[in-house]
Amino acid sequence: MLILGSSGALPVNGRFTTSQLLSVANHQFLIDCGEACQHQLRKFEVSQHKINHIFVSHLHGDHYLGLTGLLFSMHLLHREHDLHLYSFRGLEDILLAQFRHAHSVPHFKIVFHPLTEAKKEVIFEDEHVSVESFPMDHKIPTCGFIFREKPPPLSLDKSKDIGSIPVEYLVRLKRGEDILNEKGEVTFRSADYTLPPRPLRSYAYCSDTQPSPQVVSAIKGIDLVYHEATFMESEISKARETRHSTAAEAAAVARDAGAGRLIIGHFSARYKELNLLLDEAVKIFPNTALALEGESFELTD
Amino acid sequence: MLILGSSGALPVNGRFTTSQLLSVANHQFLIDCGEACQHQLRKFEVSQHKINHIFVSHLHGDHYLGLTGLLFSMHLLHREHDLHLYSFRGLEDILLAQFRHAHSVPHFKIVFHPLTEAKKEVIFEDEHVSVESFPMDHKIPTCGFIFREKPPPLSLDKSKDIGSIPVEYLVRLKRGEDILNEKGEVTFRSADYTLPPRPLRSYAYCSDTQPSPQVVSAIKGIDLVYHEATFMESEISKARETRHSTAAEAAAVARDAGAGRLIIGHFSARYKELNLLLDEAVKIFPNTALALEGESFELTD
Repeated sequence: MLILGSSGALPVNGRFTTSQLLSVANHQFLIDCGEACQHQLRKFEVSQHKINHIFVSHLHGDHYLGLTGLLFSMHLLHREHDLHLYSFRGLEDILLAQFRHAHSVPHFKIVFHPLTEAKKEVIFEDEHVSVESFPMDHKIPTCGFIFREKPPPLSLDKSKDIGSIPVEYLVRLKRGEDILNEKGEVTFRSADYTLPPRPLRSYAYCSDTQPSPQVVSAIKGIDLVYHEATFMESEISKARETRHSTAAEAAAVARDAGAGRLIIGHFSARYKELNLLLDEAVKIFPNTALALEGESFELTD
Repeated sequence: MLILGSSGALPVNGRFTTSQLLSVANHQFLIDCGEACQHQLRKFEVSQHKINHIFVSHLHGDHYLGLTGLLFSMHLLHREHDLHLYSFRGLEDILLAQFRHAHSVPHFKIVFHPLTEAKKEVIFEDEHVSVESFPMDHKIPTCGFIFREKPPPLSLDKSKDIGSIPVEYLVRLKRGEDILNEKGEVTFRSADYTLPPRPLRSYAYCSDTQPSPQVVSAIKGIDLVYHEATFMESEISKARETRHSTAAEAAAVARDAGAGRLIIGHFSARYKELNLLLDEAVKIFPNTALALEGESFELTD
């Protein structure tokens, strides 16, 4: 997961507004798309062409103002394959108005997938990965996103006597199915002929939100968690007023959810020295890192 | 005049899409506002606060996509004084939709001044400066802008016997008026008691356009001229197809208009080496310079 922008509402101190690129299971998922996202993609040598799914958490400008420029560029660079866009309905209105006033029709199809704020639901799924949206607690309708790998076929254990097993049985054993005879007795047990599955990876993106038990509940069991941490504890009243979180609150969410690792971001423009935010977080959740432009984080098992 | 962005449709090769800042007569006029304009303003230490008039030539994204981010930032930084915006009506729709979906009402008033494509007209005027829009020849309605200093009061020539002239006459002499007696005869001639006026400065911004006799006619007598030069001569068919100009065509416009100096910009993404465009222009109009991010140009007399 590559950080393209780590800043809160204002792009200052060399930081860009929020955007991340998640590479998982042959997908390049773009998560939020702050202004100048396309500049950042070029800087970090990410091909626009490979981005087919863009997830926009909410319609505050610092989370989507780079989108129109990116789409116009895709159009100018003759993209022809579909682009899937997951966000609230207003974004469709905004984008279509901008194309209309430019007297322009994109060469490619933009497939809008509207988000609903109120519930956790699967918004994308293929054989390799699923993506769920889940509600944040912010000033306007806002979703976070959970990306989960799906189990790939198991590998056969070649140290076992598999040569005598019919091919159609092997296919089913690799899917984790046991083979039963007509009496319902197990004749071949999948676990006996396959190697143990590797752990599946997952990532939770908790966008703008004040700390929320619903968020903790939604991300239980996710190893790598991003959570916004706009303020230090000294500005907690500002955090409540604007429905954001402090670094310590983000850390408490990660702790309560049993996360493996936490990344904090969406830093207020008032902070030049981000280690002060990190210090407050690690006291509560030691395995915390700062989202910094250009930093990559591995999805661990 | 400071170049903030020199690139055509795509922000590549370290270039930003079109934007310029013109400092004249206590005004900081922002001319077009490509994506990440606010990043460029910060980079070059220009205060957003001092920008009160923004001119957007047309509604192709590379000329206005930085505007919403800039306005959101002004709002977040508690701007309270009016902002005047000169552009086509669609821009108002786009901006208002973006504020509406953010559930946000700007702290300051945005005063929209709609452009009309078909004619040359004064769109702003105060005692120091006037701004005219004039039509370009592009794919969608597009205007250029001419900024003209107005004559300041003349200075009295203190080597002359002005002590005996009534003060109310001196005020009129400084305005360039001659004083007549009751018979209509000149008693005090302004030119006899004042120093010669300094030449007035002006700047013409010729946005996206194919070369146009109307543009030549509109900018006659303007000393500093910016004209787009998207392509080299080898791509002239592409220039016609997209209603843009080549560097040589921009130079011919400057020559035919009797310009003092020409700045070319809005370079196609295909050119990494901009001196090739400059070479083609200077053959026709020697006093040509490249618009490069961070370069400043004086308005000469």
